[in-house]
Amino acid sequence: MEHEQKNIQLNSRGQLCHFLSLNGLDRKILTEILDTADSFIKVGERSVKSVPLLRGRTVTNLFFEPSTRTRTTFELAAKRLSADVLSLDISTSATSKGESLLDTLRNLEAMGSELFVVRHADSGAAHFIAEQVTPNVAVVNAGDGRHSHPTQAMLDMLTIRRHAGAFENLKVAIVGDILHSRVARSQITALNILGADEVRVIAPGTLLPSNLDAFDVKIYNQMSEGLKDVDVVIMLRLQRERMKGALIPSEREFYQTYGLTPQTLSYAKPNAIVMHPGPINRGVEIASSVADGPQSLILNQVSYGIAVRMAILSMCASGQTQSTGSQG
Amino acid sequence: MEHEQKNIQLNSRGQLCHFLSLNGLDRKILTEILDTADSFIKVGERSVKSVPLLRGRTVTNLFFEPSTRTRTTFELAAKRLSADVLSLDISTSATSKGESLLDTLRNLEAMGSELFVVRHADSGAAHFIAEQVTPNVAVVNAGDGRHSHPTQAMLDMLTIRRHAGAFENLKVAIVGDILHSRVARSQITALNILGADEVRVIAPGTLLPSNLDAFDVKIYNQMSEGLKDVDVVIMLRLQRERMKGALIPSEREFYQTYGLTPQTLSYAKPNAIVMHPGPINRGVEIASSVADGPQSLILNQVSYGIAVRMAILSMCASGQTQSTGSQG
Amino acid sequence: MEHEQKNIQLNSRGQLCHFLSLNGLDRKILTEILDTADSFIKVGERSVKSVPLLRGRTVTNLFFEPSTRTRTTFELAAKRLSADVLSLDISTSATSKGESLLDTLRNLEAMGSELFVVRHADSGAAHFIAEQVTPNVAVVNAGDGRHSHPTQAMLDMLTIRRHAGAFENLKVAIVGDILHSRVARSQITALNILGADEVRVIAPGTLLPSNLDAFDVKIYNQMSEGLKDVDVVIMLRLQRERMKGALIPSEREFYQTYGLTPQTLSYAKPNAIVMHPGPINRGVEIASSVADGPQSLILNQVSYGIAVRMAILSMCASGQTQSTGSQG
Repeated sequence: MEHEQKNIQLNSRGQLCHFLSLNGLDRKILTEILDTADSFIKVGERSVKSVPLLRGRTVTNLFFEPSTRTRTTFELAAKRLSADVLSLDISTSATSKGESLLDTLRNLEAMGSELFVVRHADSGAAHFIAEQVTPNVAVVNAGDGRHSHPTQAMLDMLTIRRHAGAFENLKVAIVGDILHSRVARSQITALNILGADEVRVIAPGTLLPSNLDAFDVKIYNQMSEGLKDVDVVIMLRLQRERMKGALIPSEREFYQTYGLTPQTLSYAKPNAIVMHPGPINRGVEIASSVADGPQSLILNQVSYGIAVRMAILSMCASGQTQSTGSQG
Repeated sequence: MEHEQKNIQLNSRGQLCHFLSLNGLDRKILTEILDTADSFIKVGERSVKSVPLLRGRTVTNLFFEPSTRTRTTFELAAKRLSADVLSLDISTSATSKGESLLDTLRNLEAMGSELFVVRHADSGAAHFIAEQVTPNVAVVNAGDGRHSHPTQAMLDMLTIRRHAGAFENLKVAIVGDILHSRVARSQITALNILGADEVRVIAPGTLLPSNLDAFDVKIYNQMSEGLKDVDVVIMLRLQRERMKGALIPSEREFYQTYGLTPQTLSYAKPNAIVMHPGPINRGVEIASSVADGPQSLILNQVSYGIAVRMAILSMCASGQTQSTGSQG
Repeated sequence: MEHEQKNIQLNSRGQLCHFLSLNGLDRKILTEILDTADSFIKVGERSVKSVPLLRGRTVTNLFFEPSTRTRTTFELAAKRLSADVLSLDISTSATSKGESLLDTLRNLEAMGSELFVVRHADSGAAHFIAEQVTPNVAVVNAGDGRHSHPTQAMLDMLTIRRHAGAFENLKVAIVGDILHSRVARSQITALNILGADEVRVIAPGTLLPSNLDAFDVKIYNQMSEGLKDVDVVIMLRLQRERMKGALIPSEREFYQTYGLTPQTLSYAKPNAIVMHPGPINRGVEIASSVADGPQSLILNQVSYGIAVRMAILSMCASGQTQSTGSQG
């Protein structure tokens, strides 16, 4: 599985040409993504925030489940690379009527779209699509099922590297609804690849997935123990809309036990950084005073999200061009 | 109130950096807007209608109530300034789900959006948002509640200046549904600031707001008296969808008394110009022969609307950059 | 009728300035469109697929009936010409509320839109709009009622010319639901103008329109006879959603009699090309093995669709500019 994904995500020269999952990517590639994103952060600080890297190319957002936030960041990233952007909401689009996914894909390829950003409720959908597209076309996973959300994980890694330092010195805790989080899996994988000193998850037993054994991770049920000596605290959004069958007693009780408040944050190192993939539930998994406080990097994460997506889109486009040798 | 708004709309050098309301702006600033818009009208007459003033910058349309017409003109204005445009329909968007307005704003700022165009049903919403945004970010009011619609008023002023001459020589009548019109308030304010000789409103008592005392305006109930010696006739759209409780006896009777027909138009000066913010109700507040006649400037207003919005967007962007001293 | 359309589609120098119908256009103009499209196919093969021909101009998609596929191809074509694109879904848009079509048009013209792409369920709608727009503004028909879909027909002609050779040597068969197909009429007209050796339609009597006498076309009811010696097979989509009153016994029976399968395809010349306007109904009018087989050009058609629309948009824009003599 890991080997197969490595094959499909990297071209014959070992360059990134799809971005589907962190599985099968090594520290060198992830570091290259972070380095490239760093350079786009500098671009984002200029008043002219665009570069002509993808001028005349078409990026298609293929969203099989709605996500305004993720689609907006990919759309902005593509526009700042000067690409033309098509946004297809497949769940409601007539494009899909009486036409299979593969036929829709073939049609979009025939229109000259060379980059697909895919969001789908089913695990592995982006990987499936990447196996089907013709050479020269890159696929980027914008979140699939509970499987992974690798661009979110990479922006989190960028945040950590810029604000907490080298991974090998860091203890990182991920707190809350691990079970429903496609982000958490990708984060743990990324932290393992990048060599974080220690990765911890803190959650009630009902919000832990059964297959955590595959990861190099320590499990805690108490904030006081789990946050001890931690450099980075990553809070997860409580996916209230997905909670069926009373996995938690009440939001109030969840907040008291697992909410990040000034008090629980004090268990971590004094200068620990606080992250959250957003959108935040104030007073549910995080206190407003912490979300808006000096240790919070929640809004930095949003900025870095544009830069990371610019990096991944431009690297995949370049990887496809390099592998086929075609030039404009 | 006026003083406070002056502070927030102007930077430390007295340059426009938000555009929320005409209150607190003086004749010099309004004239600068009109002069800048004049230069963009020249751009609009070329076959290449775009300029690179906002290249690489992001303009976000934040529409809390739908308005295809206003959003389209702002979108075109932004594109002709070469900006990247995000259009968020907040009333239906998932962006707002489980997230406060402020958190949505902070996220969009973090994505690098430096200009917000805000439309909201509540009076003062744009002003509230302008108080909340970080330095460097400009807010433009695209209509808030019954309060104001200042870009519409400015395009009306541009129309008057280009076609009827200097404000100090002009008598202007605003006719119809003043009560429900956010445009009328902004128009009266603008005309007062720019020194129009006389501003009149003509309406049945039921369509007059109670607080007209605050404005320098004369009130008429008869077209024959109100339009006498008038240089400019501004008709308002009868907001039929907002008429509850029978404020007018019938559309037919309203048209007979307050409709602008060739006959009622003859009360005004022979070369009086006719304006309407659109969309027009033919045969309700204005006769087709007048709307399409030689004195009508209704379509010129639409063209000038793009130029005025380009002027305001570019001036606000420049005002924010100047005040913080940041350059790309 | 034909003479009138010729007048409106060509400027005083005989150049294309609207594209509404193939009626009234001659072989020279159609050949010029195909030659121009050929040059844009070369552009589409570069990695930078855009050209600055319409930079600073605004193309408005006026879609009175939804069509994601056609709108997407026009949007991409306009963007690759570097135009600004407005897409108005008039069926749902507030623009049309309380406002006539003509007033909407006048407003969009006043905003500086110089190219309208019109899709409407009523035959002749695009032609009507072209009669109403002011000089300088071009109208392109993206499908009107059962009348015509001329850009689709032109991309089909481009496909034939590139892959089957000179029209005068070709026998072309159009198969299936002729009755409901706006494409079929335009294809037959185009093939007649371009001098195809023979144009055939193959369909059950219930799916043939009553007015085919006006065209130079041979009618067949059997695939075995109709496809004999044919160079080009154009399959039509079975418009199942429009089939009321049991025009065909069943899809299964239709497929057995009129479906294009390896067996029925063998009636045509050995190297006959296979085309379909899409989206295809696999197993209804065409077998998957044929749709995906070596004779199929279905995806090439999609690519050529972008190039043909770029050609038509740029030629119409140029034709309008030339006729009025205005230059930017």
